Amino acid sequence: MPDTAMLLNELRGIVGTDHVLTDAADIHPYTEDWRGRYRGQVHGVAFPANTEQTSALVSACVRASVPVLPQGGHTGLVGGGTPVGTSFADGTAPVIINLRRMNRIRDVDSVGNTLIAEAGCILQTIQEAAAQHDRLYGVTFGAQGSCQIGGNVSTNAGGTGVLKYGSTRDQVLGLEVVLPDGRVWNGLRTLRKDNTGYALRHLFVGAEGTLGIVTAVALRLHPKPAVMAAAWLTMDSVDHAQQCLAALQSIAGDRIAAFELLNQEQLRTVLAHFPEARLPTDPEAPYAVLLELSDTYAQANLDGMLEDVLPQLSEKGWLRDAAIAGSLAQRHAFWHLRHGISEANRKAGMGLSTDVAVPVRDLAAFIETASRAVTARYPQATIVLVSHMGDGNVHFIPRFSFDDWNALPHQAETADAVRALVHDAASQFNGTFSAEHGVGSVLIDELERLRPPLELELMQRLRNAWDPARLFNPGKVLR
Amino acid sequence: MPDTAMLLNELRGIVGTDHVLTDAADIHPYTEDWRGRYRGQVHGVAFPANTEQTSALVSACVRASVPVLPQGGHTGLVGGGTPVGTSFADGTAPVIINLRRMNRIRDVDSVGNTLIAEAGCILQTIQEAAAQHDRLYGVTFGAQGSCQIGGNVSTNAGGTGVLKYGSTRDQVLGLEVVLPDGRVWNGLRTLRKDNTGYALRHLFVGAEGTLGIVTAVALRLHPKPAVMAAAWLTMDSVDHAQQCLAALQSIAGDRIAAFELLNQEQLRTVLAHFPEARLPTDPEAPYAVLLELSDTYAQANLDGMLEDVLPQLSEKGWLRDAAIAGSLAQRHAFWHLRHGISEANRKAGMGLSTDVAVPVRDLAAFIETASRAVTARYPQATIVLVSHMGDGNVHFIPRFSFDDWNALPHQAETADAVRALVHDAASQFNGTFSAEHGVGSVLIDELERLRPPLELELMQRLRNAWDPARLFNPGKVLR
Repeated sequence: MPDTAMLLNELRGIVGTDHVLTDAADIHPYTEDWRGRYRGQVHGVAFPANTEQTSALVSACVRASVPVLPQGGHTGLVGGGTPVGTSFADGTAPVIINLRRMNRIRDVDSVGNTLIAEAGCILQTIQEAAAQHDRLYGVTFGAQGSCQIGGNVSTNAGGTGVLKYGSTRDQVLGLEVVLPDGRVWNGLRTLRKDNTGYALRHLFVGAEGTLGIVTAVALRLHPKPAVMAAAWLTMDSVDHAQQCLAALQSIAGDRIAAFELLNQEQLRTVLAHFPEARLPTDPEAPYAVLLELSDTYAQANLDGMLEDVLPQLSEKGWLRDAAIAGSLAQRHAFWHLRHGISEANRKAGMGLSTDVAVPVRDLAAFIETASRAVTARYPQATIVLVSHMGDGNVHFIPRFSFDDWNALPHQAETADAVRALVHDAASQFNGTFSAEHGVGSVLIDELERLRPPLELELMQRLRNAWDPARLFNPGKVLR
Repeated sequence: MPDTAMLLNELRGIVGTDHVLTDAADIHPYTEDWRGRYRGQVHGVAFPANTEQTSALVSACVRASVPVLPQGGHTGLVGGGTPVGTSFADGTAPVIINLRRMNRIRDVDSVGNTLIAEAGCILQTIQEAAAQHDRLYGVTFGAQGSCQIGGNVSTNAGGTGVLKYGSTRDQVLGLEVVLPDGRVWNGLRTLRKDNTGYALRHLFVGAEGTLGIVTAVALRLHPKPAVMAAAWLTMDSVDHAQQCLAALQSIAGDRIAAFELLNQEQLRTVLAHFPEARLPTDPEAPYAVLLELSDTYAQANLDGMLEDVLPQLSEKGWLRDAAIAGSLAQRHAFWHLRHGISEANRKAGMGLSTDVAVPVRDLAAFIETASRAVTARYPQATIVLVSHMGDGNVHFIPRFSFDDWNALPHQAETADAVRALVHDAASQFNGTFSAEHGVGSVLIDELERLRPPLELELMQRLRNAWDPARLFNPGKVLR
């Protein structure tokens, strides 16, 4: 049993009394996730101002054999950055090290197209800093106003820009990390090419804080698009959407910045919640796609390209209808429908959201298989789905009305069972049960259930090699 | 001391007598590198036909405590795939497992843009298979007609396409690997997004066969460009070339498929060797750049884009002159100059080639620093250089005339000393001593000299975690 008072005093000595929180009310925002689903006991929350303080905090915790929980913007969906069921009694209560004070952008290089930021930088701040230098940071998603880049790196955050720019992993050129023994690895290089041994940085990306605390990140930037175009496409089937995507990729290539598929039920849900919203066209279509193109060349005529291509897709019988955004306001209106999904879904019923991916060519078959599996067992469920289709990533959401849900005797078990059906269907197509959200604590069972034991063994051996005491974010990713 | 005869019989039992070579003349092409610089004793060379055989070969070697040397096309430049100084006497002689019989393309998916190939596939075969499906595999370099994809993955091969498509690492979606204990890890997924624990595949990419044998690879493909354009640009300085690159990136974005910088001495060397070749323009320029653009949109007018942009660069004073290739033949003539470099350099003197990278904005300063350091100590050296400039990668080559070189008393030591000066200059700018060639056996000393001990310790712990007996390609990457 560690001497908590002594440890906390030591932490206060490192970061200052004001930067260690222990009062129940003060620490509540850090010890429970934003949806109120997961919580746990902690010794306190410490806020380091720099890498040296982070290193000293870790060393102090390790000496006291107290677990360390690295925390960023705390916007995750699988409990990776939250204490989940930790307790003083069994020694699992951690010290949370929250990086939000380390929020400096250290460098922007518009010749080499790189940016160096501290882990606590808000994603949106990084996007804005890049834009000020006429460059773009490629990752974008709903939580960008509050999530932090250190958390983005630790979860390999995805979003709607992956199709064009890749996920967070693809942006990471270098890292600075406080290791589980408190030492600092300075791998903050900004090189595009560096073949000098094992790719250490790639291990920390997506490790969800189990191998160390990311304290700074070197990111790649991209040229900022000068022109954009958007279209609202409707289709009869996922297969047709897929044909459209393949044909568009052949012609528009990397100009495709988004290809977001929604099913009719999803659209109806959004429209019900935002009564002022209007569908751009064809409200009865089974599927709709928000397509966005972007280009760096100001003279590029993207609308003209769409006017070239879309009729070809129609002729093939793959398109029902299409509307090209005629103005910036219209483009925003298209995105408003897409961005309204989370809020609308929360109000519409109990949605059991999943985050699967399958090879793009198997998307239609997966959706059919998963829908059949779920509705066979739960006929009261409605299938709502939105897909970053170019990445094969589907948020496949079996939804229960609140009445149906409240009538269920074993809700937690039902939620797990429904999700397992969806994950099984994805596995059948060599897919994944977590495309962009990570494993955290919530999906450990699924990792163990769905991946070969050898894969878990390899991960465990890595974790033991770098964190033999296993004090770093225990209970996350691996048991 | 292992019973070699017994082991070889066991290997023959696995792959068949015809597929284990032991005669000195037969094994010579496998035990000495193509430049005749490195060699070592081996028990034999085995050629498995499939993953199961590879696994059985590894298990047999491990039981006999005999080292395993995975080998692909054997085109490497740092001795990674060659036995270097191994001997029966000290127990370091390995069995070479050469993958060339495993050369099947298992799948091409033109909807999901993926290709699955066995490790022994020749790179060019993969490029051609992609092209047949109207897709492109993004990695291209000199040895593509003989190097194998397994070796490409194990060395994270680069080349001239990295600027647009990334290096081999960026193409690898999944791997199948025979681990150092003979078990097979099937991580052959083709997903764009999969956040389920540590990124195991990234550890094998660039590990140069020290963590296992890659037996199959899932690769990403890209839409095949429909139009291309090339220009030959000349500049007064590296700084001006850099300004041109940054401005071109802002406008042409990902259309830039190559931006290859050559200095005047390099051009003169090529012209001396190919007397029929002509420079497109401005033979007296200190620097020239071969610029290539490509686009998927057949209607895109890339020549028109160049005619838009190049005058802007001239007005800024960054360009001396420019010639746009007016025909396919002219574009090929530009590339002929670029591709003639290796051959011309070999004939022109003793070139001490290096493979460094620095942040792009520091390229000019690096070249000046390195040139000064080398010529101060070796005034007889001429600096020849060619750079994949968009990646910050420079093949910086101090060259001695054959007469000067032969007059040197300690040639090997001089070569090391010259390269160390270049590597030191790169380190000064937070660069790397091996951008694309890897570490192999040749650059281990430099890895130890130039990287923090903590970084080597982390790598050693990884290696021990997965290969505690350290039988896999010992003496490569890490001591």
